[in-house]
Amino acid sequence: MLINDLIGYRYNKGFLPLSQCGPTILDFGFIHSDATYDVCPVYNGKAFALQYHLNRFISSAEYYKLELPDINPIEIIKELYKRNQPPHSGYEIKDAFIWMIIWRGHPPSGNPRDIENAPIEMCFYMKPSYPLSIDGRVMNVHLSDHLRVSDEYYRQEYKNFGWIEMTKAQLDRPEGTDTVLLQSYDENITEGPGFNVGFVYDDTIFTPLKHCLQGVTMRMVGHICEDHKYRFISCRIKNDIWDIADEIFLTSSSGGVTATQRSGKITKWLQKEYLERTKSDEWTTEL
Amino acid sequence: MLINDLIGYRYNKGFLPLSQCGPTILDFGFIHSDATYDVCPVYNGKAFALQYHLNRFISSAEYYKLELPDINPIEIIKELYKRNQPPHSGYEIKDAFIWMIIWRGHPPSGNPRDIENAPIEMCFYMKPSYPLSIDGRVMNVHLSDHLRVSDEYYRQEYKNFGWIEMTKAQLDRPEGTDTVLLQSYDENITEGPGFNVGFVYDDTIFTPLKHCLQGVTMRMVGHICEDHKYRFISCRIKNDIWDIADEIFLTSSSGGVTATQRSGKITKWLQKEYLERTKSDEWTTEL
Repeated sequence: MLINDLIGYRYNKGFLPLSQCGPTILDFGFIHSDATYDVCPVYNGKAFALQYHLNRFISSAEYYKLELPDINPIEIIKELYKRNQPPHSGYEIKDAFIWMIIWRGHPPSGNPRDIENAPIEMCFYMKPSYPLSIDGRVMNVHLSDHLRVSDEYYRQEYKNFGWIEMTKAQLDRPEGTDTVLLQSYDENITEGPGFNVGFVYDDTIFTPLKHCLQGVTMRMVGHICEDHKYRFISCRIKNDIWDIADEIFLTSSSGGVTATQRSGKITKWLQKEYLERTKSDEWTTEL
Repeated sequence: MLINDLIGYRYNKGFLPLSQCGPTILDFGFIHSDATYDVCPVYNGKAFALQYHLNRFISSAEYYKLELPDINPIEIIKELYKRNQPPHSGYEIKDAFIWMIIWRGHPPSGNPRDIENAPIEMCFYMKPSYPLSIDGRVMNVHLSDHLRVSDEYYRQEYKNFGWIEMTKAQLDRPEGTDTVLLQSYDENITEGPGFNVGFVYDDTIFTPLKHCLQGVTMRMVGHICEDHKYRFISCRIKNDIWDIADEIFLTSSSGGVTATQRSGKITKWLQKEYLERTKSDEWTTEL
């Protein structure tokens, strides 16, 4: 499927082929990374935990001082879903990601410090994904020496496009590994490019609190643990947990709960529970 | 002048209106800030210190592992200049900036970690600027508490679009100030959004060594000082210099040597010397 086969929604411009939805070469969203975003998964035509994603998108936009236009996101998402299905499209898309991006355009002055006069730009789009699977491939994760930019610079719980150090870490990973976890300056575990991490140790799930996104999937893992009275702790985690954890799993909206080279029965249990929630009326919105 | 009146060069696509030169909404250059760039000023039809900018662009691309395509940048820049003048264009542009940007596109997989399969995208473009002036407006600069992402994360001497903390600092500046200087985590002076800073103290010019761009204009200030046997030192500078410096000036390719609320005869002297160099055959390339 090509980028031109998909339809996106561009604020102030309407529904357009995805190839026409990007920023211009002048936009601060591109040249200053002055943007935020969120991604909501769709399983079998139903958006999962949509309100969590929308709420976080709103909080992130506020944190980066990107004033959200007065739009109805659910209406736009439903229309996007319709326009990317037959008979409007040649493809049927049941499993997908909904992306929402807001960024600053460029001011008439062209001055890089004239931020207040740069207009707000926004795009929603949908692209196909694969259904979740419990027996999916295992990710071989490497604990990198690269440092994740810490919350002292900007709070990573608010999604941003500042992936420079994550890209460097990913490119520098050892051969045979699939991806990397980054550390903080004080040797705590943070996150990897596009995912959170959970450690199973002492019958408890530990996940980093600082210098990382507070991912919706990990939050869902927290809910699962709460429902089943399994201990779940979000805190600072020193990097020596890497050597002693019984299990290590990854969470992301793209992959749900993902097994690593060190996953076992707890990871499998979480995958099963997570999968059930993706099908439940409680957590899904019919598109 | 509108974005559609300018012609850019897009690698693999040729010369196009600037509105068609941007990244797509999927490109890693946009959604991962996986890009680098440089900007060379043009004064009266002559590119200034072009080789410095081209060399830095090459080093930056290497640092971020963005493989430069086999192109002839000077040929492209000359053609850009021609195409943005009469009779090709309705405007005559004598003073301008030449932007060069290289970024990663998006891989067919759509996987955010599939960096190796994302193609390289590149754009060169030119946009009009104003001629330099010694008696230009003074910038009222504020020393911000915001921290510049330090070299431990990625080396700021290699230009990047990671301006998130600079945008936050600029937006949070006190009323009545024009721009901001950011500090490092260890209370040293770094840089501001789009400029380096120099302090005159004890008959010496001090400029930060770490956590900032090694700007071409500041390098030129170093050459001026060398020619005139004026002391010039690039080192770590604690933030208390803010209170004791005799003069504070800014340097950028866009503004040359710019006076602040605390500039005097040394700043004026540097402005005059810099302006002369922008006209000299030694430092300029006829376009």
